[in-house]
Amino acid sequence: MAKSPEQEHPQEALGWAARDPSGLLSPFKFSRRATGEKDVKFKVLFCGICHSDLHSLRNEWGFSTYPLVPGHEVVGEVVEVGSKVEKFKVGDKVGVGCLVGSCGSCDSCYVHLENYCPKMIQTYGSIYHDGTMTYGGYSNMMVVDEHFAIKFPQNMPLDAGAPLLCAGITVYSPMRFFGLDRPGTHLGVVGLGGLGHVAVKFAKAMGVKVTVISSSPRKREEALQRHGADAFLVSSDINQVQAAMGTMDGIIDTVSAVHPMLPLIGLLKHNGKLILVGAPDRPLELPVFPLLMGRKIVAGSCIGGIKETQEMIDFAAKHKVAADIEVISIDYLNTAVDRLAKGDVKYRFVIDIGNTLK
Amino acid sequence: MAKSPEQEHPQEALGWAARDPSGLLSPFKFSRRATGEKDVKFKVLFCGICHSDLHSLRNEWGFSTYPLVPGHEVVGEVVEVGSKVEKFKVGDKVGVGCLVGSCGSCDSCYVHLENYCPKMIQTYGSIYHDGTMTYGGYSNMMVVDEHFAIKFPQNMPLDAGAPLLCAGITVYSPMRFFGLDRPGTHLGVVGLGGLGHVAVKFAKAMGVKVTVISSSPRKREEALQRHGADAFLVSSDINQVQAAMGTMDGIIDTVSAVHPMLPLIGLLKHNGKLILVGAPDRPLELPVFPLLMGRKIVAGSCIGGIKETQEMIDFAAKHKVAADIEVISIDYLNTAVDRLAKGDVKYRFVIDIGNTLK
Repeated sequence: MAKSPEQEHPQEALGWAARDPSGLLSPFKFSRRATGEKDVKFKVLFCGICHSDLHSLRNEWGFSTYPLVPGHEVVGEVVEVGSKVEKFKVGDKVGVGCLVGSCGSCDSCYVHLENYCPKMIQTYGSIYHDGTMTYGGYSNMMVVDEHFAIKFPQNMPLDAGAPLLCAGITVYSPMRFFGLDRPGTHLGVVGLGGLGHVAVKFAKAMGVKVTVISSSPRKREEALQRHGADAFLVSSDINQVQAAMGTMDGIIDTVSAVHPMLPLIGLLKHNGKLILVGAPDRPLELPVFPLLMGRKIVAGSCIGGIKETQEMIDFAAKHKVAADIEVISIDYLNTAVDRLAKGDVKYRFVIDIGNTLK
Repeated sequence: MAKSPEQEHPQEALGWAARDPSGLLSPFKFSRRATGEKDVKFKVLFCGICHSDLHSLRNEWGFSTYPLVPGHEVVGEVVEVGSKVEKFKVGDKVGVGCLVGSCGSCDSCYVHLENYCPKMIQTYGSIYHDGTMTYGGYSNMMVVDEHFAIKFPQNMPLDAGAPLLCAGITVYSPMRFFGLDRPGTHLGVVGLGGLGHVAVKFAKAMGVKVTVISSSPRKREEALQRHGADAFLVSSDINQVQAAMGTMDGIIDTVSAVHPMLPLIGLLKHNGKLILVGAPDRPLELPVFPLLMGRKIVAGSCIGGIKETQEMIDFAAKHKVAADIEVISIDYLNTAVDRLAKGDVKYRFVIDIGNTLK
């Protein structure tokens, strides 16, 4: 008979979990596996609240299991290492993003794209190799295979750096892979939220010209003044869109609501690339003629591999890229989730787990 | 006052034109410009009937102008050359595809992609540099800027080679551009019509493994036996699609009717590319999750540049790639168009203009 979450493993753990699709979170006692020879055990210090946590909490994608302990933008301090651990020692700062396991032997794993492994194990809500449920970073401690642990750079703030582990790599990876990372490139960024504002910062750090595209004219000043975007476009303003037609090499589209693709495809140069990183729950309408007429591309991209995540955070540390955050105590968690659902955050909530989860 | 088509130019010409969206074609006297110093004048021998001729004849895309003389798969024999013509002499065989002009100075023209020039002039139904309407290859003679004329290889049959000038380049160009042209690649081809059957032949000539994907089980034997495809898939057969999931590097989708993209995206490997070359008149439904989960691409491609068209026909001649055709006399034209609308042709009608248009 399966043991309870509190009894199935030897190490006690405390987190906050949702019990059902109401998504309401409350304290939850569970357990973590013994620290294996290739595992690092760490005390969680900060954890970002990602938009996908919200989707999972409320089962909006239809595959959530409860109890659910979210959190995949986790930063902590190593307190124990297994005998064969090579990358970490006790006291090191460590990050964990969206994945904690993969098969290790498929084509994707072979080229360091564990994120595309068909057996990829997510940081929460997945079944781990040992058959038990994974629980995320809304918790006091974690035990993770060191392969999936990121060395957190010394000069990177622990709180503002945490969101890079999901939001950061999600936008960084396609900018690199699709060649939108070179000086002289003109990049559009759709949506100035958790992902979008980090995309703008990475683009500027790479020397890329960046235009923020938003449905909200209120975001103009933030985009230009606060984040240093080169231009701002209101997506519903036909004149503004018309004036920018055919000027962008690529667009990173962070919006996960259903939205029109036609104006975005129009903004692209010939051979331009529209990269979707948000996941609408219904299909988008794809107009084919404008795609054909400019040999344009619509593509998807999903987080990034571990090697690339390390590269991303090292690049971010070097160029002083981090998220703009609002740090909260764990007791504020349900309010924060509600505010996130309303888009009321600039730009990421980060839970101060270390000081507030007792 | 604008002159009539018969009087506006000095050289008499005879074609078949549609007068209205009924699309019904009948003999039409018009005229061609004087042969300029960079022009070649040629007697039309054969002209393919492309599916887009049908759309244009019936104004299904909404921008047709009448009288309309279709035809952009044109092969003929040069009868006069301008004083500065370098590529051709009288008696040479010549081909003309979908375009007869472009601006010559934009980024696309600069990289030999006149097909993506915003001022591209189509072989029929466009306004030429001199302000007059262009008329296509359903006519006894043409006058064309030599830049847009293709040297037709000596060992290429004039009739079966004609369709390569549109159908051929339409599938060849994306196979090259998107890197789907290498031995070891697995290519899917959706639709075994005028474009699809040529795509299969090019793929085999390149050493590419090719699977034909069709809604019609009746096409199995044709695909495998007649064209040498390696495999055949009925797109509506869930078991067959399921068994082939994640196996293709790319897919050339030639279908211009609205059709589901989800199974096609599923057939792709990670980083796979679905290339649309048909133009449905309504948007397609794009499921985003499966695109994200495999970093997959949906792209459009539209014919090809002149340099690439020459390369394509030379490659085809070398590897004995040509279309499977049914040669008709011009008097059969309206019947052929009706049959094409019903999909009743294997795989391309080619009009024997030289012997039957008097």
